[in-house]
Amino acid sequence: MLEEKKIKKWLAENKKKGMNLLQRLVQEGSIRGNESSAQAIIIEKCRELGLSLDIWEIGEDDLFTHPVFCSDRKDFSGNPNIVGVLKGAGGGRSIILNGHIDVVPAGDRNEWKHDPFSGHIEEGNIYGRGSTDMKGGTVSLLLAIEAIINSGIQLKGDVIFQSVIEEESGGAGTLAAVLRGYKADGAIIPEPTNMKLFPKQQGSMWFRITVKGRSAHGGTRYEGISAIEKAMIVMTGLQNLEKKRNEKITDPLYENIPIPIPINIGKIHSGEWPSSVPDIAVIEGRMGVSPDEKMEDAEKEMEAMLVQISEADNWLCLNPPIIEWFGGRWLPGNLEANHPLIETISECFQKVKQTRPVVEASPWGTDGGILSTVADIPVVVFGPGVTEVAHDVNEYISINEVFVAAEIIALTLLKWCETN
Amino acid sequence: MLEEKKIKKWLAENKKKGMNLLQRLVQEGSIRGNESSAQAIIIEKCRELGLSLDIWEIGEDDLFTHPVFCSDRKDFSGNPNIVGVLKGAGGGRSIILNGHIDVVPAGDRNEWKHDPFSGHIEEGNIYGRGSTDMKGGTVSLLLAIEAIINSGIQLKGDVIFQSVIEEESGGAGTLAAVLRGYKADGAIIPEPTNMKLFPKQQGSMWFRITVKGRSAHGGTRYEGISAIEKAMIVMTGLQNLEKKRNEKITDPLYENIPIPIPINIGKIHSGEWPSSVPDIAVIEGRMGVSPDEKMEDAEKEMEAMLVQISEADNWLCLNPPIIEWFGGRWLPGNLEANHPLIETISECFQKVKQTRPVVEASPWGTDGGILSTVADIPVVVFGPGVTEVAHDVNEYISINEVFVAAEIIALTLLKWCETN
Repeated sequence: MLEEKKIKKWLAENKKKGMNLLQRLVQEGSIRGNESSAQAIIIEKCRELGLSLDIWEIGEDDLFTHPVFCSDRKDFSGNPNIVGVLKGAGGGRSIILNGHIDVVPAGDRNEWKHDPFSGHIEEGNIYGRGSTDMKGGTVSLLLAIEAIINSGIQLKGDVIFQSVIEEESGGAGTLAAVLRGYKADGAIIPEPTNMKLFPKQQGSMWFRITVKGRSAHGGTRYEGISAIEKAMIVMTGLQNLEKKRNEKITDPLYENIPIPIPINIGKIHSGEWPSSVPDIAVIEGRMGVSPDEKMEDAEKEMEAMLVQISEADNWLCLNPPIIEWFGGRWLPGNLEANHPLIETISECFQKVKQTRPVVEASPWGTDGGILSTVADIPVVVFGPGVTEVAHDVNEYISINEVFVAAEIIALTLLKWCETN
Repeated sequence: MLEEKKIKKWLAENKKKGMNLLQRLVQEGSIRGNESSAQAIIIEKCRELGLSLDIWEIGEDDLFTHPVFCSDRKDFSGNPNIVGVLKGAGGGRSIILNGHIDVVPAGDRNEWKHDPFSGHIEEGNIYGRGSTDMKGGTVSLLLAIEAIINSGIQLKGDVIFQSVIEEESGGAGTLAAVLRGYKADGAIIPEPTNMKLFPKQQGSMWFRITVKGRSAHGGTRYEGISAIEKAMIVMTGLQNLEKKRNEKITDPLYENIPIPIPINIGKIHSGEWPSSVPDIAVIEGRMGVSPDEKMEDAEKEMEAMLVQISEADNWLCLNPPIIEWFGGRWLPGNLEANHPLIETISECFQKVKQTRPVVEASPWGTDGGILSTVADIPVVVFGPGVTEVAHDVNEYISINEVFVAAEIIALTLLKWCETN
């Protein structure tokens, strides 16, 4: 009881310190290939905490050849993975605390009220790309560890803090950490869940569909075949497939989620001249995979849909759309809702927030799929970020929630890893 | 009768010369802003024919401020317009022979059997971007003039040969020639008509429609609004509008044209990340305008359609698509089918080909709209090129047709301008 009070007190007294750390991390716009300066801040912090550090550039042979490996990046040098271990006294359960440092591109800068990498603070929120997804969560992890250390508490189990690259593009950073031998009895990933607990995580994978047409002058467009018109058939097929797949989802954890496993059409590019009939269209998107589903089965379902719509179209049956499963790929995760890890974090949540947590299935893939599938680690996804603004303009996070999450995580560590 | 025989003979004896000229022109890939080297070949040829030459860089003040002026190019220097006049003895009708030197981009080079600017010759055809649209036509004009000169024939009326820039982007070259004072009693434009006569020409104009969405993470795509989904509503609206507009066309000249005034969607670009909901989509295309229609009325019809679809959609009614009329703009042309110019060229056609010409309305805009609307010149569009391959990969033209068209045009000049 005394320990929990100490933690609450330390967090209350170190608001400014935590806020500054988060602001500095947001200001280092760590989009893909540019993660090093943000990681430098993480390294500095781990050193200050006295964690035993492991800093390495991923890209070992066993990474590139692993069946789950997914990245179009050939070279990760200069942008390391970081693991900092708080060694326990022994006898307790160990835990991995995993956050990713990479952020998605800022999008249309004109739509941002402030520079996307300003770290602007207003009414208790920090703004910027990566604030919610997921530097705020990473700061919660570091605050939880710091609060425990500075409260003079000694844990029995090891705490393995990880700041990885490549989550947004398929999880090569976390996979590399698993292959390096980092395992534990449980894992928390503080992705932006709006403080909900996600024992199950949607998997997802990227696809690219190339649709052929035949070019012609726009004035005699009937002499050609518009790749855009044919792409519209494919996109309607994707919309119908999404509907069909989601109607089959009955898991109560998805009850409040409008589209449990969405098929997102993220890009379409076609044509180069307004008065020519476009001869090629390229669609790129992301297919959600249910926690109960195999990636391969989801792939087959989409491929079958493409065959079906092609058979119904004179042009497409001779020129079928070509699908590639490229880029990002996140395995689904599936932990039973009454697992001890969920029960522990739920209990601590209730102690801090005086209310029961909402338990749902995550609407997106996380690195949790790799931890659970490849390393057989029980994973819960829980974090302070605002789900709705992840990947959006004017992304922000409530500084207060970062501290509330830090307290819940710190209390979970006390119970899970046990104290001397 | 002797004159006509002389022309036929000269053309038959100069096949190689004409073919070489066309090949050299195709090899100078005169895409926008790069017209000078192809124009240099035209200048050389006009000098050889002894035409009185006018070579000038367009861009006078009255051009830029003219209501019909349409170009996003601010500077035309280095890529001149060319006019070469064969002065008549006096007393006959004058004629403008107008060809454009600019060609559209080559498109996907991998789809071309030979380099698009190779000028490759195979089985009586010359291949390459611009061969059909419309360097072949321009060579027919030059051959007709050369045949007349070398047959020792003296015309009464002036022949005003024009090799202009900027046809593919809205006709600034021909407009500049009109503003410079070039007028005549008739005009022939040898665009690729498959040897059909087009007394009426479809007008056309480019449009850009910007559709807004709201970005979000693809896994919670229901938190955002997909600009691609909203763009699909707009594109369906464009398809329906095209159908409605074409059902109204009753002109018998359009009888054999599947879509008399097409709305071509030439480009769509949206999104930058597969797992984000795209927040903006940009559609570009070309709207056909009927010979009986005002450009402004066609614009209004499309704008009304956008208002209508927006009113039916919760998002679009608050975030209406924005339309811009940018880039290319070609006025429609409308000459009565029994005009003396049509009758003259028809008669010569029949004399050379032993069959009546097909008379249709053109499926695309040409510079004829500017000649007829701005300068009140009767225009017929007639040329040797293959309509279907204009703007397409593996564009080609039959060398023989270039010579047949040259003969028909030369005979038309004899009758129209009269001889001494």
